[in-house]
Amino acid sequence: MKDTYNTTMLTDFYEITMANGYFQSNAEVKDYIATFDMFFRRVPDNGGFAIMAGVEQLIDYLKNLKFTDEDIEYLRGEGCFCEEFLDYLKNFEFVCDVWAVPEGTPIFPYEPIVTVKGPAIQAQFIETMILLTINHQSLIATKANRIVRAADGRPVMEFGTRRAQGTAAAIFGARASYIGGCVGTACAIADRDYGVSALGTMAHSWVQSFDSEYEAFYEYTKMYPNNATLLIDTYNVLSSGLPNAIKVFKELKPAKMGVRIDSGDITYLTKKTRQILDEAGLQDCAIVISNSLDEHLISEVLREGAQISSFGVGERLITAKSEPVFGGVYKLAQIEKPDGTVIPKMKISENVEKITNPGFKNVYRFIGKDHGKALADVITLRSEGKPSEDTYEIFDPNATWKRKTLYDYEVKELLVPIFEKGKCVYESPSISEIRDYCKEQVATLWDESLRFDNPQTYKVDLSQELFDLKLDLLNKYGHQG
Amino acid sequence: MKDTYNTTMLTDFYEITMANGYFQSNAEVKDYIATFDMFFRRVPDNGGFAIMAGVEQLIDYLKNLKFTDEDIEYLRGEGCFCEEFLDYLKNFEFVCDVWAVPEGTPIFPYEPIVTVKGPAIQAQFIETMILLTINHQSLIATKANRIVRAADGRPVMEFGTRRAQGTAAAIFGARASYIGGCVGTACAIADRDYGVSALGTMAHSWVQSFDSEYEAFYEYTKMYPNNATLLIDTYNVLSSGLPNAIKVFKELKPAKMGVRIDSGDITYLTKKTRQILDEAGLQDCAIVISNSLDEHLISEVLREGAQISSFGVGERLITAKSEPVFGGVYKLAQIEKPDGTVIPKMKISENVEKITNPGFKNVYRFIGKDHGKALADVITLRSEGKPSEDTYEIFDPNATWKRKTLYDYEVKELLVPIFEKGKCVYESPSISEIRDYCKEQVATLWDESLRFDNPQTYKVDLSQELFDLKLDLLNKYGHQG
Repeated sequence: MKDTYNTTMLTDFYEITMANGYFQSNAEVKDYIATFDMFFRRVPDNGGFAIMAGVEQLIDYLKNLKFTDEDIEYLRGEGCFCEEFLDYLKNFEFVCDVWAVPEGTPIFPYEPIVTVKGPAIQAQFIETMILLTINHQSLIATKANRIVRAADGRPVMEFGTRRAQGTAAAIFGARASYIGGCVGTACAIADRDYGVSALGTMAHSWVQSFDSEYEAFYEYTKMYPNNATLLIDTYNVLSSGLPNAIKVFKELKPAKMGVRIDSGDITYLTKKTRQILDEAGLQDCAIVISNSLDEHLISEVLREGAQISSFGVGERLITAKSEPVFGGVYKLAQIEKPDGTVIPKMKISENVEKITNPGFKNVYRFIGKDHGKALADVITLRSEGKPSEDTYEIFDPNATWKRKTLYDYEVKELLVPIFEKGKCVYESPSISEIRDYCKEQVATLWDESLRFDNPQTYKVDLSQELFDLKLDLLNKYGHQG
Repeated sequence: MKDTYNTTMLTDFYEITMANGYFQSNAEVKDYIATFDMFFRRVPDNGGFAIMAGVEQLIDYLKNLKFTDEDIEYLRGEGCFCEEFLDYLKNFEFVCDVWAVPEGTPIFPYEPIVTVKGPAIQAQFIETMILLTINHQSLIATKANRIVRAADGRPVMEFGTRRAQGTAAAIFGARASYIGGCVGTACAIADRDYGVSALGTMAHSWVQSFDSEYEAFYEYTKMYPNNATLLIDTYNVLSSGLPNAIKVFKELKPAKMGVRIDSGDITYLTKKTRQILDEAGLQDCAIVISNSLDEHLISEVLREGAQISSFGVGERLITAKSEPVFGGVYKLAQIEKPDGTVIPKMKISENVEKITNPGFKNVYRFIGKDHGKALADVITLRSEGKPSEDTYEIFDPNATWKRKTLYDYEVKELLVPIFEKGKCVYESPSISEIRDYCKEQVATLWDESLRFDNPQTYKVDLSQELFDLKLDLLNKYGHQG
């Protein structure tokens, strides 16, 4: 019952006009072997790192690339595509190689997180869905991870379905939130189709539908004795909701009980509520909070001593409200002509931060053997092979005299093959494996990279060979800029 | 080929636990006839009004409500639902009445924009998808309308697919942008399935794939002589892109030509570009701008005299970046018990702005006959019938001594029936009809409501009867708050 909507045509129209252009071009551009990298330039919310997510859906997309007869008819109707090209699409067979960083991995600006190598006409065409899929889920996984870290061990539920930007944002936002560390979602279909545990309590309307708040609580607890979380702020938390909840809990003794507060001052109300529950002998009763939360508010109320068992986080997570865009881009890095000529490509921009890294590349993470912490990532040319396991000299590409020799480390290749000549060669781990992996990988980062504001910049350096190639190209073509 | 993914289970899990609860409750709550209203409390970006959108997709959802055998199996597996309830879902037949404000209509805080009346168990269940659908599309239509108004007659294209929050956000964001006034989208599938014109130019990679910028431009223009818009900022706009484009345009004389600039200072570059194009005799060549635009930047560069023919707007539109949440809520307004007792309901909150309007209601817009401008909206109880066509006294519900008599107006009912006893009775207009209607309706607002910042608050008043009912309930139950 998973969504099987064919998204082949979910693409920027220019991908199709360019594909047709490559197809028809005398320069045989369509047969050039192009290498594209997806990377991003800035971590949302000025965080220290992002979390990779969306690879499983990217694989689904690439596996199901197919132009239907209706698509061909639609394109023919546009009147600007040649029949040979439409034939090519009709018989489209994906043949590219694709690498991606596994889901749940901490990722950093400028390093390739997806690399595609194949005929220019194909490698270009898939740009839009690669960006859409990885940008969305990485955005939400990154935000969720911030919120989960703020909650400091308390469970966080994703509650934002009603404020999501469309159905896919609700479903895959729930999935990405789980990867980032949430314990579950309110979204039932994300549970049914993607194994993200769904949970939920009650709305104010439940309480209002009965003749009294007591009756509403009584009926609910009787029906759900294994998990009775009662929403206690419909009338008044302290004078009505809480006394009614305590009365019902004492009468019906549910196996698991909780109260949820969705309005009012969190610190004051939860302290009072905890005290009253404890005095009533209900030390086991959980307090769930769910009112316009994000990492900052959670950190603050916990610092104020708020008494909270778990959090339900809605719109600020599902839309990544504070910064709702993950700015991943997809840039040409190299072309190989049919005669074998290899031409590294880079976008030279007047804005230095927009200059790309040329060539067919790899990314390695160096991890200290003594402490298990990540020391640096290094982007290399694939032709260099894996860095030596003994020592490796890194340097700041913006201050090349700052050099440091690494030793006693393990080297981890970040990009793994997911398609070889168009065939999928990667099996996605289960969602809970990805979630565990994420937690374990975030733990390899130093505390100073985890700060919400103004974190230490993690080192993402270039190998000497890549640096030299880049400088060479800048000297050659940079005067045009 | 439209998406036929069954979204019945795209719901907050608590809608299902509540439904099961209503079903099993001794109080026969499931057979209560409940009335729910969707409304919102604040216009995003502090604007003067929002644009209603998403009704067509809401209708699709309601028409296709169906629990599959797999859904029932999934729910049974949760272990908390009774078999009679699962049977009820299996044979689920939607029987509610639904009203909605037509798409493209300017809407204001606190007025019902969707009303549902029917068995509590059903009217509650559909909450999540009503909110998700209308919140998302209204958010984007509202943002698009702001950007389109800033562009002051110049066409605006929606270019944000790659930064959308998932596939549905891309497709229905393109649809909502069109309703709000955009002329088209980059998203091909939104054209194929929803009739939103798709257009596009080229990426930097096109230019980089050829041996020279001139060759890239030449090949493209030769292939697309009816619409050759060339991206001129890959190397340098003024020293390279523009001279190469002019050379190609003069050689190939395309029927329609344009240059697109995606980086650098918009005002400076477009003034220079316009001057150079005009001096070259290419007065017809359009200048398209597409770099991190929104209503504020567009207004500013136009004030600075930037020479722009049209805009491509990406991430700041498709995510409504400045405020990515439309806070629509769905609240219980009335229940009718099987014995015929009618009980108006309102949520009484310590936050006055969170107090809801009770009862089964209607909304009317008063439009001045002499100038065709909207004078006020009035929320009434349905039992009052349509307001008199002669005179009508309105008053500020927060300052009841401020009264004003309206005359010489037409009264327009805003909510139209879309489902009657579960059957759809509304046919959505075409997307271009909705877009035209939106433009025409926005023109009924006074200039002071159109300001981007700190606009005049449009009057949304309560009828005397509704006001009296609300006050009565507040006096009766408000002491609990």
